[in-house]
Amino acid sequence: MIPLSDEDEPLRHGGDLGASRRLFPGARCRFIDLSTGINPNPYPVPRFSAELFARLPDPSAVGELAAAAARAYGAPSALVVPAPGTQILLPLVAGLVRAGRAAVLAPGYCEHARAAAFAGHSVKAVRGVDDCGDATLVIVTNPNNPDGRLLAQTDLLALAEDLRRRGGTLVADEAFMDVGPPGASLATEVVCGNVVVLRSFGKFFGLAGLRLGFAIAAPAMASRLRAALGPWAVSGPALVVGAAAIADTAWIERTRKRLEKAAQRLDKILSGSGLDVIGGTTLFRLVQTPAAGALFQHLGRAGIWVRAFPDNASWLRFGLPATKRDWQRLDDAVASFRLRGRAFGS
Amino acid sequence: MIPLSDEDEPLRHGGDLGASRRLFPGARCRFIDLSTGINPNPYPVPRFSAELFARLPDPSAVGELAAAAARAYGAPSALVVPAPGTQILLPLVAGLVRAGRAAVLAPGYCEHARAAAFAGHSVKAVRGVDDCGDATLVIVTNPNNPDGRLLAQTDLLALAEDLRRRGGTLVADEAFMDVGPPGASLATEVVCGNVVVLRSFGKFFGLAGLRLGFAIAAPAMASRLRAALGPWAVSGPALVVGAAAIADTAWIERTRKRLEKAAQRLDKILSGSGLDVIGGTTLFRLVQTPAAGALFQHLGRAGIWVRAFPDNASWLRFGLPATKRDWQRLDDAVASFRLRGRAFGS
Repeated sequence: MIPLSDEDEPLRHGGDLGASRRLFPGARCRFIDLSTGINPNPYPVPRFSAELFARLPDPSAVGELAAAAARAYGAPSALVVPAPGTQILLPLVAGLVRAGRAAVLAPGYCEHARAAAFAGHSVKAVRGVDDCGDATLVIVTNPNNPDGRLLAQTDLLALAEDLRRRGGTLVADEAFMDVGPPGASLATEVVCGNVVVLRSFGKFFGLAGLRLGFAIAAPAMASRLRAALGPWAVSGPALVVGAAAIADTAWIERTRKRLEKAAQRLDKILSGSGLDVIGGTTLFRLVQTPAAGALFQHLGRAGIWVRAFPDNASWLRFGLPATKRDWQRLDDAVASFRLRGRAFGS
Repeated sequence: MIPLSDEDEPLRHGGDLGASRRLFPGARCRFIDLSTGINPNPYPVPRFSAELFARLPDPSAVGELAAAAARAYGAPSALVVPAPGTQILLPLVAGLVRAGRAAVLAPGYCEHARAAAFAGHSVKAVRGVDDCGDATLVIVTNPNNPDGRLLAQTDLLALAEDLRRRGGTLVADEAFMDVGPPGASLATEVVCGNVVVLRSFGKFFGLAGLRLGFAIAAPAMASRLRAALGPWAVSGPALVVGAAAIADTAWIERTRKRLEKAAQRLDKILSGSGLDVIGGTTLFRLVQTPAAGALFQHLGRAGIWVRAFPDNASWLRFGLPATKRDWQRLDDAVASFRLRGRAFGS
């Protein structure tokens, strides 16, 4: 039995409205959850047939979903492995490469370091792809969460080549690549062998509760992941919605444009009140301010839940409001913070 | 990279109606799927709120589901780990104990041997709990699939004690224990340390497409499994239906009785036509006949898909028909096979 360790302790995440209610019991109104980077206007979920819940997920439906994802991501279908969310893939992938030194680009999604440590790697956080030293597992999130940093495909391919020479693997978590620039994904490059790409479904399509994600990897890794997940990893409803959504190019294009506008609107609210938006994607924006703690408290009391960072007290991450009313409440709450004489720059 | 091996090859399972259509393209009617041991009259699924699909599954809902499962299974809630089906737990559990010699009780559910081999164990199939030799991982299915063999709790506890002395672990897959005798489950005994119990949700509750199952294990193993699965392993809809169904003692009691009657009715159809029912649970019945191959073909041509076994050509497993019409079609098909002069005993 592997001994108990720190990696077993739960980490803090966005999306936990129970935590918001415990922290701000006085907030009288419905909480607006801006603590995640999930599209607040989801892909429409059909009325599912009872069979989708009742029967074991159909192997041919798994194949259809993988084929749809393969077309969308530009990788051969045989290399696409559907999973119940990408989260579950992190320790699986890290566990299928030789345990050694892992470098995780930081700041970033906190579960990566934990998953690599869980799988037996000695993990260090590094600032950039040039700082990976002799790591044999390098994990990047691209575009990055929470700062939106985008790594160039050429740099990542050079890193992958370096890693290959020492028998190492590059994991690129592309959870937010649906709103990244065209041609930036490494999904088209996994055939070269030592690159594993993770793609989320729930964020861009706004269906995080459905649990769906993909690993895209060279044949050996894809095959091992498929064997680890087993024959019915993805639920019946997720197979059906996933295949339909990923192939719905009109909805995808419309949504990309809508998210761009929404992100601009969010920036206007934030920077219009003197807040410094230092990065993000069109699904979330990162604010840096010495008043982050006070603003977090102020928004919480107003029933607005944003993401604070234990490791960086001057950062707050804002997701997109869902409705006209929620936009207005955010606008009012940010403005009223400023009007109370709290200078954001102070 | 762990090299590719046989464990990566997909195994054959029940429930694959695509396979039935490929094998019997001439069958004109809707296929009746009797190839699984899944309750054909599922727990009623509510109309889900859109939020359940859209939002990340709520940590407090995970806690409520674990609490409901804990009450139902008689184990402390902290030792219950919800997962997206038990299948995904097999290699995880096998991977969290020291790789060594694994004994899997056979005949049984074929994925156990594969999962143990995948996790690095050298696996042998054994006939009974007395044949486990010096294995450090023993995997039993109780009641067993497909023959329904029930292992006595006292024998399993003695085996667990033996295993503990050599640092080993007992995994009890209780996928069909919802229809097993009261008091037979090991779920109440996991606190003693080296016993892991797996409980399926989808079979008894007839919701295999939802993907829900549980591991019940001592604190260290429960904590490691929770860390491996991550914070959102179970979908929003599964959390809600699971908690409601597992606590619905009236539905559960009614369903147990209904399944008993259905199994008796199935036995009557089968044995009434001279077929020898040699075991099973109230969710499936196992038939042994030298005419198994011919009967499988006959039923397939009549649009009835039952489970054949590559390793045992004289066995067929029958699940329960869902409707009056399906019962009639099965009855007619079995009877017409006999009337065509195929003596089952020949």
